Amino acid sequence: MSILVVGSVAFDSLETPSGKRERVLGGAATHFSLAASFFTPTRVVGVVGEDFSAGNEKVLTDKGVDTRGIERAEGKSFHWTGSYLNDLNTADTLATDLNVFANFAPKIPVEYEDSEFLFLANIDPVLQLDVRKKMPKVKMVGGDTMNYWIGAHREKLLPVLAELDVLLINDAEARQLSGESNVARAAEKVLELGPKTVIIKFGEYGSAAFFSERSFGDGVKHKPFRVHTLLLEEVMDPTGAGDSFAGGFFGYLASQGTLTPEIFRTAMFYGSVMGSFAVERFGTERLENTTKADIEERFQQLRDLSHL
Amino acid sequence: MSILVVGSVAFDSLETPSGKRERVLGGAATHFSLAASFFTPTRVVGVVGEDFSAGNEKVLTDKGVDTRGIERAEGKSFHWTGSYLNDLNTADTLATDLNVFANFAPKIPVEYEDSEFLFLANIDPVLQLDVRKKMPKVKMVGGDTMNYWIGAHREKLLPVLAELDVLLINDAEARQLSGESNVARAAEKVLELGPKTVIIKFGEYGSAAFFSERSFGDGVKHKPFRVHTLLLEEVMDPTGAGDSFAGGFFGYLASQGTLTPEIFRTAMFYGSVMGSFAVERFGTERLENTTKADIEERFQQLRDLSHL
Repeated sequence: MSILVVGSVAFDSLETPSGKRERVLGGAATHFSLAASFFTPTRVVGVVGEDFSAGNEKVLTDKGVDTRGIERAEGKSFHWTGSYLNDLNTADTLATDLNVFANFAPKIPVEYEDSEFLFLANIDPVLQLDVRKKMPKVKMVGGDTMNYWIGAHREKLLPVLAELDVLLINDAEARQLSGESNVARAAEKVLELGPKTVIIKFGEYGSAAFFSERSFGDGVKHKPFRVHTLLLEEVMDPTGAGDSFAGGFFGYLASQGTLTPEIFRTAMFYGSVMGSFAVERFGTERLENTTKADIEERFQQLRDLSHL
Repeated sequence: MSILVVGSVAFDSLETPSGKRERVLGGAATHFSLAASFFTPTRVVGVVGEDFSAGNEKVLTDKGVDTRGIERAEGKSFHWTGSYLNDLNTADTLATDLNVFANFAPKIPVEYEDSEFLFLANIDPVLQLDVRKKMPKVKMVGGDTMNYWIGAHREKLLPVLAELDVLLINDAEARQLSGESNVARAAEKVLELGPKTVIIKFGEYGSAAFFSERSFGDGVKHKPFRVHTLLLEEVMDPTGAGDSFAGGFFGYLASQGTLTPEIFRTAMFYGSVMGSFAVERFGTERLENTTKADIEERFQQLRDLSHL
């Protein structure tokens, strides 16, 4: 089944212990859709400026991503400047130039309206809710958010949370959203806000899914599930790791079409695998050069890493 | 097979978000031996002062721990004062009163000489090496250390590392010991220093084992293995979590008598289980009230948490 993802398509200027890069292709929807493209047809809704080249678009279309929903606007694309020199696990934002993204009003091409899966990447929750309402027939909705919306626009975020089958956030965001420092208790409070399931990401330490009675439609509250990251010898650029995790996770779910606890667990493994590729090179470079065989090999490594 | 553990038997005064406790029973050898006692006969070599009561000793002997190697010296027992108010994952040391521990010279009772497994908890590496030399017939040696010995007494620590079948350290210590910030590369450098296997602990994020060609005597370099922690809703006091992990891990290994990759992986799971009990109450309280059935239940939880 196909996924529609709405979110940022951007350029990133980055500094990490491995070096510096100017204006590499980035953005949540970019990383998400590249990762998801290995599993299922993926369609993007976003906005870019005049600096977004045919070569940039080809990175997506080469993987079969449908880019007809990427709107061209006058001006420059969203540009984020960040540094990981202090800590590979935490980005220091040096500059956020929203540019054309400041006036983003998502438009959904008519050809996208039959998408069965919808992923609301981290954008203004008002836009997230708007897109959700425009896609009333989707089978499953996933979403992300960030500290800014949790802190300054909670009342706009809450109606989005109520629409989500799966919310993906990091541990700091889960603590902020719930007011609980203990992750397990934070997850339970987040579930009370509406999402059927929450996945909490711990950066290089993997992620954990917490389920409610509503997660699988069986009325059963399933026990949490946790997935490791692979122990990579080279981490060049953590940007997009979480979005690539989301893309692999949601892409695998969409490829299966039905939701069971086992499919959910397998999807989290694929999420971790896709995140492991994302961080090995700057920008989208490693995901561009990933094959299905690479993915299956790492899936097996992750299984061997974690199974008795 | 029986384990001899040498290390601190102490009192801890603690402050955590859950409260304050004065002079609860602690020390690396205490936590280790309580955890190991559920799996195999365990013998302790340590030193205490006149403040160590019959009731304190009974905590150990009630679990079948052999305490004949705990020497009584004039003066007070080792007393550590620490706070976790800033961060449950990081202890701030407020005071370290070595007391009788300052002149600790381990004496091994003749009844302990047939111990097949030896665990060198975190003490002066000169003493660790001395104990190792006094136990030439042991089948397997595990050990721990800390930042102080790595930083200020590296030349004394290196001969100990060369004696170890398994070194257990945390990620910060692995980085310090190796000079590598990437954990996977740090582990490889640590293995070059001598230990056949290294387990790197990530606090609440679990631990990872890295193997060398010498790990299992088969000349094969096995791939890393990683274990999660359970997602506890209550973490009262992280003190002793690492020592309880080590006790569960080494205790299970000793109970099996033979070393295979599968037994090693299972031992790490039991290590994580024992660590999960340690942190739920202050001091030794939770381990004192743990049963075999509790342990098997958590082992199953940890399997369900991590297996596809």
